[in-house]
Amino acid sequence: MRITTVGLDADDTLWHNESIFRLTQDRFRALMAEVAAPEVLDAKLAEVERRNLSLYGYGVKGFTLSMIETAMEVTGNQAPSPIVAEILAAGRDMLAHPVEALPGVEAALADLAADYRLVLITKGDLLHQEQKLAASGLGDLFAAVEIASEKDAATYERVFARHGDGAARAAMCGNSLRSDVIPALEAGCYAAHVPYHLTWAHELAEPPVGHAKFAELASISELPAWVRGLG
Amino acid sequence: MRITTVGLDADDTLWHNESIFRLTQDRFRALMAEVAAPEVLDAKLAEVERRNLSLYGYGVKGFTLSMIETAMEVTGNQAPSPIVAEILAAGRDMLAHPVEALPGVEAALADLAADYRLVLITKGDLLHQEQKLAASGLGDLFAAVEIASEKDAATYERVFARHGDGAARAAMCGNSLRSDVIPALEAGCYAAHVPYHLTWAHELAEPPVGHAKFAELASISELPAWVRGLG
Repeated sequence: MRITTVGLDADDTLWHNESIFRLTQDRFRALMAEVAAPEVLDAKLAEVERRNLSLYGYGVKGFTLSMIETAMEVTGNQAPSPIVAEILAAGRDMLAHPVEALPGVEAALADLAADYRLVLITKGDLLHQEQKLAASGLGDLFAAVEIASEKDAATYERVFARHGDGAARAAMCGNSLRSDVIPALEAGCYAAHVPYHLTWAHELAEPPVGHAKFAELASISELPAWVRGLG
Repeated sequence: MRITTVGLDADDTLWHNESIFRLTQDRFRALMAEVAAPEVLDAKLAEVERRNLSLYGYGVKGFTLSMIETAMEVTGNQAPSPIVAEILAAGRDMLAHPVEALPGVEAALADLAADYRLVLITKGDLLHQEQKLAASGLGDLFAAVEIASEKDAATYERVFARHGDGAARAAMCGNSLRSDVIPALEAGCYAAHVPYHLTWAHELAEPPVGHAKFAELASISELPAWVRGLG
């Protein structure tokens, strides 16, 4: 059963994302330095983000709202107002941040696009993901783009049924074991993990070592050879 | 050329939306009553929303961020902090607001679904739109759901090529002349306007009176007969 379709995650697979969140969180810590200890702030932000995830979903707008809510909670609703304006500005800066493909991405995708249908499969804010893809210059390499509110096995079944020849004839590649690898394997895809140097706590999971359809790759540059080797 | 596919807008076509924004804006005015005159606040909010639209897109999260930014701007960054917490709560209330189909919607869709492929075509926050569709109980009537960052002629061409037999064999129905009717006509669809009693200023446009493929309907209950009459 030949592989015809390759799915690719976007954030931290094709371009930086988590590092931008971390830099913004550093900025948030600095803004709040006089009113909250960094470890108290980090713990509260993680709690607020987790609480809001089912309402806000993934992405910068929800993160910005959660930073403001955190600032309010750690100060008993007494956060100095200029801080709120600074948090809003930090969120806008994230949305307007330049997008640059990670090393090796363009070459690997161009190589694969010659022989396979490439499908971008990501979550986050719809508009922002579309804008990042456009800014990356990688858009023309993809046959389809799917922005989903959650990436579970049903998502991969649906996407590869729509844009390919089903999950069994697809390979998925991404930096998140939890979102890109494990549910894709559950759906019956092959799946390769290409780690990013940072992982959001929410995305952590155990690697499915020993699974027949799983591979751990050191870099996206190894992806074309691995996919071709699947037959 | 028989019509095979019917596209439907969601917000203010299938369920209330603008009225919830207006109620939240009333709540915002009341919260800010001691620090800003209502007309000053409204004008500033409209300006901030317009400025942020290309970054935030449509939806409740962007609206909430714009309310907070407005509160900061009209007070010179001195908005009382409890107000910010109240605005965040108002945004969360919007996201958690119960969804109820507008009168006549369920019957009209059930009628149409017997003979046509129904496609939901909407913009806004991806997760929130999916949650509203699930809460509405209307999900099973749709063959497909497309949540787009913008609704222009290219969107309708793409969606009806993917889920139907092309725009020429599709009819679109919605409350916004600007987003649902005019671009759908441009794409070559038939298009029916079913007004909602409130329209966001951004969505206002001139009706394409006299266009051969356009109809103005008083209620969604008139939609099935109009679609069947197209041949």
